[in-house]
Amino acid sequence: MTGQALDTASSRRSTKARLGEYKRYWDEERETMDPKKREMLILDRLRRQLSYVYDKLPFYRAHYDEHGFKPDMVTSLEDFTTKVPIITKKMLVEDQAAHPPFGSYLGASREELIRIHGSSGTMGKPTMYGVSKDDWERAGEFSCMALWCAGIRPDDVVHISLPFTLFFGGWGVLQAAEKLGACSFPAGTMIATERQLELLGNLSCDVIIATPSYVQHLASKAKGLGVDPGYSSVSLAIMGGEAGASVESIRESMRLAWGDIGLVDVAAGSTSELYPFTSNIGCLESEGGVHLFQDENYTEVVSKEDPNEPVAPGTSGAVVATHLWRHSQPMIRFWTGDEALLDNEPCRCGRSYPRLPNGVFGRLDDMLVVRGANIYPSAVESVIRDTKGTGAEFRIYVDRTADLDEILVEVERAADLPSEQAPQLQTLLEKQLKMALGVRVPARIVEPSTFEQQTFKARRVIDKRTQRR
Amino acid sequence: MTGQALDTASSRRSTKARLGEYKRYWDEERETMDPKKREMLILDRLRRQLSYVYDKLPFYRAHYDEHGFKPDMVTSLEDFTTKVPIITKKMLVEDQAAHPPFGSYLGASREELIRIHGSSGTMGKPTMYGVSKDDWERAGEFSCMALWCAGIRPDDVVHISLPFTLFFGGWGVLQAAEKLGACSFPAGTMIATERQLELLGNLSCDVIIATPSYVQHLASKAKGLGVDPGYSSVSLAIMGGEAGASVESIRESMRLAWGDIGLVDVAAGSTSELYPFTSNIGCLESEGGVHLFQDENYTEVVSKEDPNEPVAPGTSGAVVATHLWRHSQPMIRFWTGDEALLDNEPCRCGRSYPRLPNGVFGRLDDMLVVRGANIYPSAVESVIRDTKGTGAEFRIYVDRTADLDEILVEVERAADLPSEQAPQLQTLLEKQLKMALGVRVPARIVEPSTFEQQTFKARRVIDKRTQRR
Repeated sequence: MTGQALDTASSRRSTKARLGEYKRYWDEERETMDPKKREMLILDRLRRQLSYVYDKLPFYRAHYDEHGFKPDMVTSLEDFTTKVPIITKKMLVEDQAAHPPFGSYLGASREELIRIHGSSGTMGKPTMYGVSKDDWERAGEFSCMALWCAGIRPDDVVHISLPFTLFFGGWGVLQAAEKLGACSFPAGTMIATERQLELLGNLSCDVIIATPSYVQHLASKAKGLGVDPGYSSVSLAIMGGEAGASVESIRESMRLAWGDIGLVDVAAGSTSELYPFTSNIGCLESEGGVHLFQDENYTEVVSKEDPNEPVAPGTSGAVVATHLWRHSQPMIRFWTGDEALLDNEPCRCGRSYPRLPNGVFGRLDDMLVVRGANIYPSAVESVIRDTKGTGAEFRIYVDRTADLDEILVEVERAADLPSEQAPQLQTLLEKQLKMALGVRVPARIVEPSTFEQQTFKARRVIDKRTQRR
Repeated sequence: MTGQALDTASSRRSTKARLGEYKRYWDEERETMDPKKREMLILDRLRRQLSYVYDKLPFYRAHYDEHGFKPDMVTSLEDFTTKVPIITKKMLVEDQAAHPPFGSYLGASREELIRIHGSSGTMGKPTMYGVSKDDWERAGEFSCMALWCAGIRPDDVVHISLPFTLFFGGWGVLQAAEKLGACSFPAGTMIATERQLELLGNLSCDVIIATPSYVQHLASKAKGLGVDPGYSSVSLAIMGGEAGASVESIRESMRLAWGDIGLVDVAAGSTSELYPFTSNIGCLESEGGVHLFQDENYTEVVSKEDPNEPVAPGTSGAVVATHLWRHSQPMIRFWTGDEALLDNEPCRCGRSYPRLPNGVFGRLDDMLVVRGANIYPSAVESVIRDTKGTGAEFRIYVDRTADLDEILVEVERAADLPSEQAPQLQTLLEKQLKMALGVRVPARIVEPSTFEQQTFKARRVIDKRTQRR
């Protein structure tokens, strides 16, 4: 069934047609502005944001006071980098615990909020995200510019295979695709891959938005059904939620499967905190990489050891990001934990924003990204420790079979737990892991003393994906 | 964890407060209009729609020609009921098969579409729904009026526990809640009930939108965790996707669990074809039942045997519905398969629309509604027949354990299938059922000749829910 549908799909739109049919930029003046002039505007916005968060948001006031920082100390972009203390995910989680549910950095009344989302809670409790009406509106407008840059046009049919639930991921792109005037098919991730393929073909979808793993999985599933994705109507894949779309070997294997289609990276490594996360997005004219729409969310690449020390363009460093416009839960110098390098050379698309030519290529902490979900080994460990009947050691295995990431946890049973109770322990553990992490993590119970005892927790993670690269 | 969060939630808003704080109606003139005057407007719209579908949509043209019907034969509402041939789900499915993907009743170009959704395909292939930008916009505006009638106000935090995927269900209410200015938390159905409860409490949600089964399930799960939902912040439950919210025994058990909160029925028995399905919605001042916003979607209750024969108000009949405004996939006299009775007495809320005082209370075909999903026994049968290794007979059991619907299929293995292959057959069958129906249906393989042979398929369905009522 699927095969035929995909094969007889209407003919594919070329990248050239995609670029030629409509206006080139969503907002030419803004996107091609002289970078020096733009920097003046950015500095102005940064200064306003600093005053706002210091005056109105107790979280920032306390943090800045503790570091002896005052907003008027910033009179240049260099000041901003060298003087403003960063904030971290851990600080946000602690502040939300002390000031539930949104923390003392919400900056909006309950009546002003229009949307609530949340993280999967992989660091324990889920982090809650609140967005005000004004911020929602502005982020939507901005994301039209970003998706236009990625190549979406109003006559596209856009198949969105990202989850629509607590997680923020799929919602932002849906909002913008709709505002831009494209036709959205928000299929989500609750439908079997066979059916997703069938619908992709039946509807002659032009664009697919998903994680890079899933785009690869779709192609190999199609082949398994005897269908060549190279003949599908899909002419553009926009991929986010995890790194990959800017990695040349992955792009090469996608081109082999899908043929000559646009492969665009979006919000790779970006997190829900940074909505509109589309401020970090590729285009059809560069091979991978993302532009940084610095006049919306300001991104810096700084020293991995000292976040107040800039690094030169072309040098690998840590990504720190700042909301220039959001008043509800604004992030000011948020340490993303991502590793990247910045390039100021103009892109051949003509946009004058700096770029991350390789996207995001590493994590500076031990967070695992498995099929687009963030999993902290420390969270897995705390579930295991809290589950009665488990022994001293465990291992977390991550691998890529065919084209999907797989995770497995092996846990020793306690010496005093009869071996016939291992199946119950497994069931309980899997349930607790699902509860705590929001994603399914299979567990296997092994005999006591199977593993060598570890004191350094990262040694308990065996990530075969990175070992192979 | 959950317990505390739910218990310490901010205090509950009374229904009185909900009605008193804001304007009473969204559009007073429209909602309280003299019914006679409204009927003139409805007739005018009906005549325009008939001309439109006959002139522009091949599906309707062929259907009406076949029945010798011409739009100018309608000069009164009575003419509309007695002369216009109905359309059925089966006709739509066949037309989409002949004219994929949207059928010859789409009435919009690909460029005009803004949203695509689909049914779960329980009659075989999924039915695809396409909505034009104009229709999407209008339906959103209209649904504000409907949700206002149901009691949602701009300062509400609205927890939506309906699936966000192929199915249309949750999307329409999200769109309207957002447009109305309320804060939406579209949690969906991918999160465990414990976590849904935790978030409901942490966020002090005011409104929950879900199926009636799920609202009951939330309450009993909360009690299991030692939490009294009567002390939660939730002051309004809006329930759709299946019948129940207008059934007094169910309402009574909900009041016992949740205390004095608004219990409102929406789109009970309505289907995705009829988006904006909120045209059929209750209010806070009547005990159950729904208003029919007849100037948006026109609903008739007619003879179960002859859809061109009206039945008197207060008499049980079949529900037939018509879009007055939609140009993309308009439904004109669509036979919903629902059973209801109509009441012209004005509601105490002051809205002058007719009502279905008992909501929808039956199905005229054999469709099963299980946890809000539509399942046709004929579709289950066709999967079983197509799966090698199955025997002659099967049974479909539906029951309600605790407060959730449960379904189970028992299938005989073929006499020539070795009994040790039963587990593989079960796995295969469950996979095929999931593929075809879009929902998980557990299967159990039983010995050949376990069941008496049946010729009438309905006898293969054992619905213990209806047996008990």
